[in-house]
Amino acid sequence: MGHRVAVFGASGYAGGELVRLIDGHPDLELVYLGGHTAAGSTLGEVQPHLGGGDRPLGPLEPERAAGCDLAFLALPHGASSGPALALLDGGVKVVDLGSDFRLTDPAVYAEAYGSPHPHPDQLGAWAYGLPELFGAAVAGTDRVAAPGCYPTSAILALAPLLAEGLVGGDGIHVDSLSGTSGAGRSLKADLLFGAVDESVAAYGVVSHRHRPEIEQGLTSHAGAAATVVFTPHLVPMQRGLLSTCYAASTPGLTEAAAQECLREAYANAPFVDVVDVPPHTRWVVGSNRCLLHVRLDGRTGTVIVISAIDNLMKGAAGQAVQCANLMLGLDEAAGLPVAGWMP
Amino acid sequence: MGHRVAVFGASGYAGGELVRLIDGHPDLELVYLGGHTAAGSTLGEVQPHLGGGDRPLGPLEPERAAGCDLAFLALPHGASSGPALALLDGGVKVVDLGSDFRLTDPAVYAEAYGSPHPHPDQLGAWAYGLPELFGAAVAGTDRVAAPGCYPTSAILALAPLLAEGLVGGDGIHVDSLSGTSGAGRSLKADLLFGAVDESVAAYGVVSHRHRPEIEQGLTSHAGAAATVVFTPHLVPMQRGLLSTCYAASTPGLTEAAAQECLREAYANAPFVDVVDVPPHTRWVVGSNRCLLHVRLDGRTGTVIVISAIDNLMKGAAGQAVQCANLMLGLDEAAGLPVAGWMP
Amino acid sequence: MGHRVAVFGASGYAGGELVRLIDGHPDLELVYLGGHTAAGSTLGEVQPHLGGGDRPLGPLEPERAAGCDLAFLALPHGASSGPALALLDGGVKVVDLGSDFRLTDPAVYAEAYGSPHPHPDQLGAWAYGLPELFGAAVAGTDRVAAPGCYPTSAILALAPLLAEGLVGGDGIHVDSLSGTSGAGRSLKADLLFGAVDESVAAYGVVSHRHRPEIEQGLTSHAGAAATVVFTPHLVPMQRGLLSTCYAASTPGLTEAAAQECLREAYANAPFVDVVDVPPHTRWVVGSNRCLLHVRLDGRTGTVIVISAIDNLMKGAAGQAVQCANLMLGLDEAAGLPVAGWMP
Amino acid sequence: MGHRVAVFGASGYAGGELVRLIDGHPDLELVYLGGHTAAGSTLGEVQPHLGGGDRPLGPLEPERAAGCDLAFLALPHGASSGPALALLDGGVKVVDLGSDFRLTDPAVYAEAYGSPHPHPDQLGAWAYGLPELFGAAVAGTDRVAAPGCYPTSAILALAPLLAEGLVGGDGIHVDSLSGTSGAGRSLKADLLFGAVDESVAAYGVVSHRHRPEIEQGLTSHAGAAATVVFTPHLVPMQRGLLSTCYAASTPGLTEAAAQECLREAYANAPFVDVVDVPPHTRWVVGSNRCLLHVRLDGRTGTVIVISAIDNLMKGAAGQAVQCANLMLGLDEAAGLPVAGWMP
Repeated sequence: MGHRVAVFGASGYAGGELVRLIDGHPDLELVYLGGHTAAGSTLGEVQPHLGGGDRPLGPLEPERAAGCDLAFLALPHGASSGPALALLDGGVKVVDLGSDFRLTDPAVYAEAYGSPHPHPDQLGAWAYGLPELFGAAVAGTDRVAAPGCYPTSAILALAPLLAEGLVGGDGIHVDSLSGTSGAGRSLKADLLFGAVDESVAAYGVVSHRHRPEIEQGLTSHAGAAATVVFTPHLVPMQRGLLSTCYAASTPGLTEAAAQECLREAYANAPFVDVVDVPPHTRWVVGSNRCLLHVRLDGRTGTVIVISAIDNLMKGAAGQAVQCANLMLGLDEAAGLPVAGWMP
Repeated sequence: MGHRVAVFGASGYAGGELVRLIDGHPDLELVYLGGHTAAGSTLGEVQPHLGGGDRPLGPLEPERAAGCDLAFLALPHGASSGPALALLDGGVKVVDLGSDFRLTDPAVYAEAYGSPHPHPDQLGAWAYGLPELFGAAVAGTDRVAAPGCYPTSAILALAPLLAEGLVGGDGIHVDSLSGTSGAGRSLKADLLFGAVDESVAAYGVVSHRHRPEIEQGLTSHAGAAATVVFTPHLVPMQRGLLSTCYAASTPGLTEAAAQECLREAYANAPFVDVVDVPPHTRWVVGSNRCLLHVRLDGRTGTVIVISAIDNLMKGAAGQAVQCANLMLGLDEAAGLPVAGWMP
Repeated sequence: MGHRVAVFGASGYAGGELVRLIDGHPDLELVYLGGHTAAGSTLGEVQPHLGGGDRPLGPLEPERAAGCDLAFLALPHGASSGPALALLDGGVKVVDLGSDFRLTDPAVYAEAYGSPHPHPDQLGAWAYGLPELFGAAVAGTDRVAAPGCYPTSAILALAPLLAEGLVGGDGIHVDSLSGTSGAGRSLKADLLFGAVDESVAAYGVVSHRHRPEIEQGLTSHAGAAATVVFTPHLVPMQRGLLSTCYAASTPGLTEAAAQECLREAYANAPFVDVVDVPPHTRWVVGSNRCLLHVRLDGRTGTVIVISAIDNLMKGAAGQAVQCANLMLGLDEAAGLPVAGWMP
Repeated sequence: MGHRVAVFGASGYAGGELVRLIDGHPDLELVYLGGHTAAGSTLGEVQPHLGGGDRPLGPLEPERAAGCDLAFLALPHGASSGPALALLDGGVKVVDLGSDFRLTDPAVYAEAYGSPHPHPDQLGAWAYGLPELFGAAVAGTDRVAAPGCYPTSAILALAPLLAEGLVGGDGIHVDSLSGTSGAGRSLKADLLFGAVDESVAAYGVVSHRHRPEIEQGLTSHAGAAATVVFTPHLVPMQRGLLSTCYAASTPGLTEAAAQECLREAYANAPFVDVVDVPPHTRWVVGSNRCLLHVRLDGRTGTVIVISAIDNLMKGAAGQAVQCANLMLGLDEAAGLPVAGWMP
């Protein structure tokens, strides 16, 4: 039939979306579901909205995926590296949705995550799974670190402008808003309905772990250093992520030229569109699309790019499937919806 | 390729879901999009979440669907009957998502809708599009009136129990909760975020138009008169409909027997499941499923059936496609998702 | 200054509202704040929206309230009875917002709560704190059990009709919708934003503990037995509670007579109003009011009363202060807002 | 009893809050309620959550407020100037919550609002009603233009830092999130629940009218030019406004010094507090407080101030009452809650 794949971490939000996408994918066959804390449950007990609810969640053991072509890991931070290397040793390609292998510099990793990486030699050996910018690397490897949701939105917004020299790499501001599913499914007082509903707040001010990842992605694509101030905010909605990104324009830049730069950069990208009005996150919920809107504030010489994605789709499971498609020689867009749902 | 279909009323919520489902359907080809007030716009302007946004919305003219196998009508109440009959005259099968042809008794229609029906001879000529109970009629006709969202939930919950004589037809109470998309997309002060958010209210108390439709559906299937008190409520969510239905049990009935009755009735229904815990509407949002939970209150001799659907899927567009599948000789479940999305 | 009062359980939702109301009350002085799990914190750490955030939360020790005129207990079920009796022994009046002393029959208590009451002699010795119906008892005692939120809404809706013989006590249905603050502030997966938002569900079907409390309140006031089927639902909002109540009308009853009965019953009640349209819960959020809307379904002989309250105000803290006002000889309405907030 | 006041524009959200605050104010007496489109209704018809619902909404005629000490105007943009001048001519002090008299430079006004001001001589004659920074001017005048909600949050956050020379006036970014009540109560498709719920979007990018008001307020207080890039976003909640403000730090600035600057500036301000964690808007909903959180990003030399208010309280009605208190010689904080409500 199709390529045989496994999902480890099927009980979280991203894991649930992976199962939904793979179940509907024309070329993938889901042959193993591994749980983390939910091992021993059925899929229906933890994901009652999915079909095939009687499928069991097995243990988090890489050997269960023996014979698979590819495994997706949707595990908490720090839990991926052991299983990932075991899977690769067994000849199974890996797409890791976690943050274990995204950063390439061990020192940056240690500062961002508070401890040295257990396998520093692996850093830099993984492709960064943003197909629109690093597609060739993704297609040619057996190990992909899928980007974080905030970095996906910000790097897609700014990298082509930086690469073309239309904006400077200093003084970049990224102000982001995320639905709560971005914070995962764990039981925290901050994620109770009574705390989240009808309220917004910033978090991770100055120190969020996605800041170095954004800088690395911009620098890596553009070949020019980028320094970013990044402030994420939690907003009372389930899904959707909006980044409002500011960068200093090069003298003489016009708004039209900035827009044209992004249109050209993504002319062949099936999931990135430049739009003429500020996008609402609802327009991409359920879709693998990223919508970009570009403006120039001539008074201050500031390019503003607003970027909207579904944090669980283009920001997690959808992008992971997009990477898997490339790694398996399939059509990049196979099994991935352009249409979202509304309302 | 597939069967050629048209959608009239593509700019509303149900119309948008029809387009999304047909675009993803393996055996249907969407060849005409008709707008109502939005004719002249592009699809992307009114449904920015869908793919193929440059498709135009044409006028509400039945002849535009000439050569189609089937047309879906998702129009405001009263707007369907003219186009529907013209389409049928042209040999195009019709699934009407509106309420024009659901009731079979002209007197009941006139009381519920406040004016006589313009084509009383058509009443009774249309199949009632609830495939689980009236599937043969649906499969054998060229004209189907798709049920209202509330009647779908209530009739699926109670009809088999009534037909088997396990509950009485008198004293039925149906207490329903609906997300706001059930009220459509029109510009009303009652539907502003400031009015809906963080509030619930009943509406249509005693007099809601879906009450006679529920009674008719129950009576028609069960062959026994049913009298219903129906109270719908609007709750602050986009999608989802929950009906809590109460009926007097026949003496000697056990909870297990009531559950077994519904399990048997829907044993071959791909979209109706009896579940062991009270269903959350979120478990069916995006899905064409209906989840039923059955309890018996022995103290008072009351059977309680709780029924959850997505009002835009099983309650509107999904059910309409399910009917079209039968009318066109396709697999009843073709193109219809079992899995929903969560969160 | 005013009467000295204490609050035990100041870190929950009802406790926070008690502090807010007492801080703004012209005749009460809050002299002790006792925490439960939060003892040792400051008020500002657990209730950052309140003024005087540097006030400490002390331990749950009754002797800390020595010298107080009255203490409010807003503690988890089962935690009130010990401190309550110690406070009473010390001469401190008690309003218990918990469920420990509401039921009067030890057998009913044991069935509802799953274990025998530790002080069965106390059952029946406490006034039931619904001032509109049992005001004299409240004013004349030192111990009040404030009603549950669901019983408050349902008993106010139906008791006068039952007492006047306008409806029967058999076959009463109460279908209720509550915001999530009614479930308290504890850390449960069911209360995460990702689980609650955009979803509704029933819970406690057939077996909810408030069912016998509703029956007791109706029976006690009306002097006629009442049997109730009660189904509560959780809806995605913070506050607000709506009960749709159904009872069989006595032959010959008119809608006007039913409405008049409730208007007369509450003619002198500052917080209960009969309104002409179905009330939205938002109209009473922040207010101590209860809005009642009365309809008669003549076809089936069913009286429908829809009752809206703020579950934390009239359903908890507001009603507790209303009781305290009576117990302390103050104006019943002192310090209690009629106006709510919107949006 | 107290000072006699009138409210013109009592049917909107800010107008409703004015009525609620004045009804509970110890020194103000509300003697006239003027409607705009709602003239002829009762208060209860348009504000069903308020007490005294049988009070009529009279016409928008300034002479109805003859004999009042002060009138509040909560009218759509452009509707204030006529009534305001007539009231002043009649000896009635005015607090205008609209934007007619906020800007002082006719050219800036014309550019921001798209047409010349009808009374350019009045520009500059009105005090800017931000009491923490311009309290003396407010106390000494009979005409106050209450600030916009976004400017209130941003100016309070940055003005003291700019005045002390701790940050530069160039390259200021203000990224703001507002609940939908900030957009008013009018009937727009963008404000339907189906459009707002579960979605975020930016609007007014580059061109929002509050941008020049922020620049004017900063410049006016600090005596140093400020240039601002301002991007507001609409988030799915009723109330609450969060501004994340970025400014370039002066070399050598420490985070502690920045925090201390704001603490000192507001040491005597009853409603502005500097807090140690990023504030949630819910902590100030219902309160007249503004919470500020200050951080320094040493890598890039950026001061980040996060500012949270309730857009209808400190951002509108609460601040207007605070101004009125000063204008009438009352305690600045009279009748204004510090405590909000939660959840």
